[in-house]
Amino acid sequence: MKVSIVGATGYTGEELLRILAGHPQAEIIHITSESRTGAAIAGIYPHLNSFYQHTLDSLQDLDKIAAASDAVFIGLPHGHAMAAGKILAEAGVKVIDLGADYRFRDSKVYEQWYKVPHVHADAGAVYGLTELYREQVKAAAIVGNPGCYTTASILALAPLVKRGLIELNSVIIDAKSGVSGAGRGLSLNSHFTEMFENLKAYNVGGHRHTPEIEQALTDFAGQPLTISFTPHLIPMARGILSTCYASLKAGVTPEAVDEAFQALYGGEYFVRLLGRGAYPATKQTRGSNFCDLGWHIDERTGRVIVLSAIDNLVKGAAGQAVQNFNVMFGLDERTGLLQAPLYP
Amino acid sequence: MKVSIVGATGYTGEELLRILAGHPQAEIIHITSESRTGAAIAGIYPHLNSFYQHTLDSLQDLDKIAAASDAVFIGLPHGHAMAAGKILAEAGVKVIDLGADYRFRDSKVYEQWYKVPHVHADAGAVYGLTELYREQVKAAAIVGNPGCYTTASILALAPLVKRGLIELNSVIIDAKSGVSGAGRGLSLNSHFTEMFENLKAYNVGGHRHTPEIEQALTDFAGQPLTISFTPHLIPMARGILSTCYASLKAGVTPEAVDEAFQALYGGEYFVRLLGRGAYPATKQTRGSNFCDLGWHIDERTGRVIVLSAIDNLVKGAAGQAVQNFNVMFGLDERTGLLQAPLYP
Amino acid sequence: MKVSIVGATGYTGEELLRILAGHPQAEIIHITSESRTGAAIAGIYPHLNSFYQHTLDSLQDLDKIAAASDAVFIGLPHGHAMAAGKILAEAGVKVIDLGADYRFRDSKVYEQWYKVPHVHADAGAVYGLTELYREQVKAAAIVGNPGCYTTASILALAPLVKRGLIELNSVIIDAKSGVSGAGRGLSLNSHFTEMFENLKAYNVGGHRHTPEIEQALTDFAGQPLTISFTPHLIPMARGILSTCYASLKAGVTPEAVDEAFQALYGGEYFVRLLGRGAYPATKQTRGSNFCDLGWHIDERTGRVIVLSAIDNLVKGAAGQAVQNFNVMFGLDERTGLLQAPLYP
Amino acid sequence: MKVSIVGATGYTGEELLRILAGHPQAEIIHITSESRTGAAIAGIYPHLNSFYQHTLDSLQDLDKIAAASDAVFIGLPHGHAMAAGKILAEAGVKVIDLGADYRFRDSKVYEQWYKVPHVHADAGAVYGLTELYREQVKAAAIVGNPGCYTTASILALAPLVKRGLIELNSVIIDAKSGVSGAGRGLSLNSHFTEMFENLKAYNVGGHRHTPEIEQALTDFAGQPLTISFTPHLIPMARGILSTCYASLKAGVTPEAVDEAFQALYGGEYFVRLLGRGAYPATKQTRGSNFCDLGWHIDERTGRVIVLSAIDNLVKGAAGQAVQNFNVMFGLDERTGLLQAPLYP
Repeated sequence: MKVSIVGATGYTGEELLRILAGHPQAEIIHITSESRTGAAIAGIYPHLNSFYQHTLDSLQDLDKIAAASDAVFIGLPHGHAMAAGKILAEAGVKVIDLGADYRFRDSKVYEQWYKVPHVHADAGAVYGLTELYREQVKAAAIVGNPGCYTTASILALAPLVKRGLIELNSVIIDAKSGVSGAGRGLSLNSHFTEMFENLKAYNVGGHRHTPEIEQALTDFAGQPLTISFTPHLIPMARGILSTCYASLKAGVTPEAVDEAFQALYGGEYFVRLLGRGAYPATKQTRGSNFCDLGWHIDERTGRVIVLSAIDNLVKGAAGQAVQNFNVMFGLDERTGLLQAPLYP
Repeated sequence: MKVSIVGATGYTGEELLRILAGHPQAEIIHITSESRTGAAIAGIYPHLNSFYQHTLDSLQDLDKIAAASDAVFIGLPHGHAMAAGKILAEAGVKVIDLGADYRFRDSKVYEQWYKVPHVHADAGAVYGLTELYREQVKAAAIVGNPGCYTTASILALAPLVKRGLIELNSVIIDAKSGVSGAGRGLSLNSHFTEMFENLKAYNVGGHRHTPEIEQALTDFAGQPLTISFTPHLIPMARGILSTCYASLKAGVTPEAVDEAFQALYGGEYFVRLLGRGAYPATKQTRGSNFCDLGWHIDERTGRVIVLSAIDNLVKGAAGQAVQNFNVMFGLDERTGLLQAPLYP
Repeated sequence: MKVSIVGATGYTGEELLRILAGHPQAEIIHITSESRTGAAIAGIYPHLNSFYQHTLDSLQDLDKIAAASDAVFIGLPHGHAMAAGKILAEAGVKVIDLGADYRFRDSKVYEQWYKVPHVHADAGAVYGLTELYREQVKAAAIVGNPGCYTTASILALAPLVKRGLIELNSVIIDAKSGVSGAGRGLSLNSHFTEMFENLKAYNVGGHRHTPEIEQALTDFAGQPLTISFTPHLIPMARGILSTCYASLKAGVTPEAVDEAFQALYGGEYFVRLLGRGAYPATKQTRGSNFCDLGWHIDERTGRVIVLSAIDNLVKGAAGQAVQNFNVMFGLDERTGLLQAPLYP
Repeated sequence: MKVSIVGATGYTGEELLRILAGHPQAEIIHITSESRTGAAIAGIYPHLNSFYQHTLDSLQDLDKIAAASDAVFIGLPHGHAMAAGKILAEAGVKVIDLGADYRFRDSKVYEQWYKVPHVHADAGAVYGLTELYREQVKAAAIVGNPGCYTTASILALAPLVKRGLIELNSVIIDAKSGVSGAGRGLSLNSHFTEMFENLKAYNVGGHRHTPEIEQALTDFAGQPLTISFTPHLIPMARGILSTCYASLKAGVTPEAVDEAFQALYGGEYFVRLLGRGAYPATKQTRGSNFCDLGWHIDERTGRVIVLSAIDNLVKGAAGQAVQNFNVMFGLDERTGLLQAPLYP
């Protein structure tokens, strides 16, 4: 399969390059960057030295890129991805967008949270949370790859929502992310000296992953719901832990909760059920495409607490993108994604 | 004032020594450690070199210590503190215990969570969350100094509970702590290589700070309540951020929330009100006795989210102990605690 | 190839398991641990969940293990490895020892630095710094896999020593290692709270990797030399940077230095020559078997400074062990070792 | 004493504010920042909330500032400091410059390394390494406060050079610094995700602290010498460890080395002699003005290795500046600097 990456100099693009370097059925044709056009990959990312001899192309040549590629991964900022996606889709190339532009079925929700008009609302894009939308992804021409927080949070809550075990409007998600989630762009919030031995919340009640989680959970609930979502910055580079709280409906037993997780994920390779009472740790997923789940029943308060750990750059971004790519092209879903986590 | 420290080789004891080194009215008489009796302080804690010439005494000499001291800080494990506390109190020495033995008014609650019979239940101990129990502390002979998570969490929620602004049983506390909270005892959970770039929850629904928070909030609510409390380990040495969720009662305005914080803490030196919409960061309190508070109204869900940051070893342990000591002896509460936070 | 691992619960054993999980020609037969015999791998190392279904065997069954294995990796403490190695070698099994027992040609040097009598001095073991001793490794029955500091340091200096470009007794190696180098055993030095935002040297002038470096450099110099070696602990989990200083002989040009590196490593896959003036960074090798080299000429002082970065658990331990295994069995040396570094 | 700070929004300015907040004899009059003129200190540095009510002034008002101040600390970039220093000095204000402009007696050396013409070469500035130049500092009108690496390195080597115990041209300094040393300006090198679990050297052979170290050591040697200096970035916020190597002259005994340290620093409060065989750790100086020294004799190679640990922002910058201020005004040198290190 001939594959290109459009917008490759952020962390998700870089991570795609790392993963695809070990993918036996993907040949990288073009890699673009507007800020570094003409530079050699190995000059920007010395760790990829000896894996890539490419120099960076420009978006200007999108037609050429489309003609040469079976699939294109898009790593552009939101608002820009849909412009490129439109051209690529019309050229018959399969598209996996790692940003937000193709994640929402209702473009009004997108426009409300992202403050940009949607220019490709009729794309027929599919939401690429692979385990939960696999059949749609198989047939998709364009996949909107989920956000990092959303992947961890939706996987944690979908079993409970689907089985109707929790009070829908009781959901609170307290999520913690390593600083790579803030990207490679410089800012005081990602300045080493500021974030080292530091910890804080941000965007309380207003983070853009909120409507994405609500869209998916609504799908499984069969009715709309509203959640509280609070993201936090943690002084580490990679990893997300999502701590999800919900009130159990009266009479729901711990075994019914266990069963809901087994039923939905028992056959999944990338979702590892550590079980009731278990404590997933982000480092046990580092560098891998796994989502580790553990859950707890707090009998004093009637709540269930689900803990969900991923590597934000892999299952939360580039890894899931490759998983979707595999599904779209009929490959074994795990191709190129079988690395064991890098622990410790 | 002549002061001794019983059980000084854990992190809270060490932190007491650091703070008291700068306290103009406390003269350190005895410092004990059963595991290191006879050793020089500067040998165990080289950073305190040039501050202390003491060698470590033993608990065996508790009578002698009592006779020589106006006040004793206890840094012993729970279960052991009350045995020492009893002897000291009977000798007329003022006691500030940094562990759990004197935190509960109902010794049955203590015995249920700590699995030890209480041997000093009639101590008349006072719960030492200074800002909220100052009048009792003034008159106390024994103070049970609060836990780290509890200090951050109770300060965050007391204003809302006291004014009746929230649904009592909707409280969820998602707390994050640096690894020093796990103490100086060796364990795989505090092994550098395991916790570096790692993040996990522990003791979901069962952490012993839960009943302590409930006791205090019940005081201010005037009726019992039950909370969900989830602690997390964060890859940093110092700092706690407590993210507290509660449902606002119908009709409560943002301004009413602001006012509740102002009313309770407007005149407090060590509680800094960053305001509505603000994001306290643990590093901005590092090494200091401050508790920084920010709060947010999530109008979509009708919840209030309070963020509370402290240094777990200072306001969450040794700093508040010194604050209580000052109050008990009629000194300016801030004596020895005026250091600015160590940032960055 | 049937492969077993004897002593697998330290970090090097764990890392072997991680790497061999992706090795297409190694089938893991037995894995032993005396402290955890009978336990499931996935219980001890949850990150390896879904890769290994083995339970841990005991050294007691070494004969059985020998009979079932083509090769055995030994991860036992020094002194214990040679006892097992002897039995395995006599049973005709190929042995790769990750400890120090088989690293020294002169068992007296071993005994002097390690304070244990050598019980298998006639083993005919080969020193497994693959790039420099490849021909011997090919034919070896027992390989003594090099230490982490030594791998980084010898690779840095061998080109200069071999070409006679430096004053032999001017060599100073200032090496910095992540805390995983201190192993999984608990100690105050590896306690998170102690080592976080901390930095110190240890074992100045007395570290056991010193004679190992001297043995190899003596091989290439053709005459004995003595070096200064200073290791440091750095607050990170993985990675070694070795900063190597030497005085250039009179008249040696920068180009001659460049050429020495090219001549020795120009065809090597795992040694990446970043070039003169370059700054290798440990993170650019993380999780990979690469050694990145950069070098500098300080014309003011007539010194050459070589910078060498590796992942101490991979090229410094388990990765090089697998590389040696590949060489011993005639496989492509890179088999199972083609993962790109995990950056950032 | 009325004190102003010119250029206060970098880390050294911020650290000055932290320290001076606890200085009983310094009243802060003006604080300037060109980039944030008009802003409140507490808005930029929330951790200083409740310590300063000042808003930031501008350099435009330097005359007014001079008129209102007994002393001014300058935290401006090199090249800019001397312009301000000239005006202030001519107005009779005592000046402590934390940058490089006043560190060199020979302005040609300055111009060669800093590539700017010196406009105040006749300032009669004194080099402010307090322990070694105290008498000159007492009488100084302008002090050039030393760099961070230089403070650690000169204090480590001065005793040996002064006593003539080492071969002058054998000195190699391998220094390691936390990332705060790179300042508050944004750059990829200080981006959290890039530097976390990472380690690298920079500016080998060309760092601007090199001539500063050479100037001071030449003073004590009585003859010129040339050193090798290699700085490294360590993934932590604060702290410098300088590992200094030198060849002992023939016949120098370990006791002579010990004596050299005792003779020079035996009466110094801020230099703590941990002794021969000791390992200073940066964290044991964190937040304090101490420099901890340990030294080792490597008998195999005839070298002495001195280890020197400081907090780069305190003894390496703002702390030593306050120490100089105290000396210049005849105060107890330790005023405002008596805080115990923040450990752990």
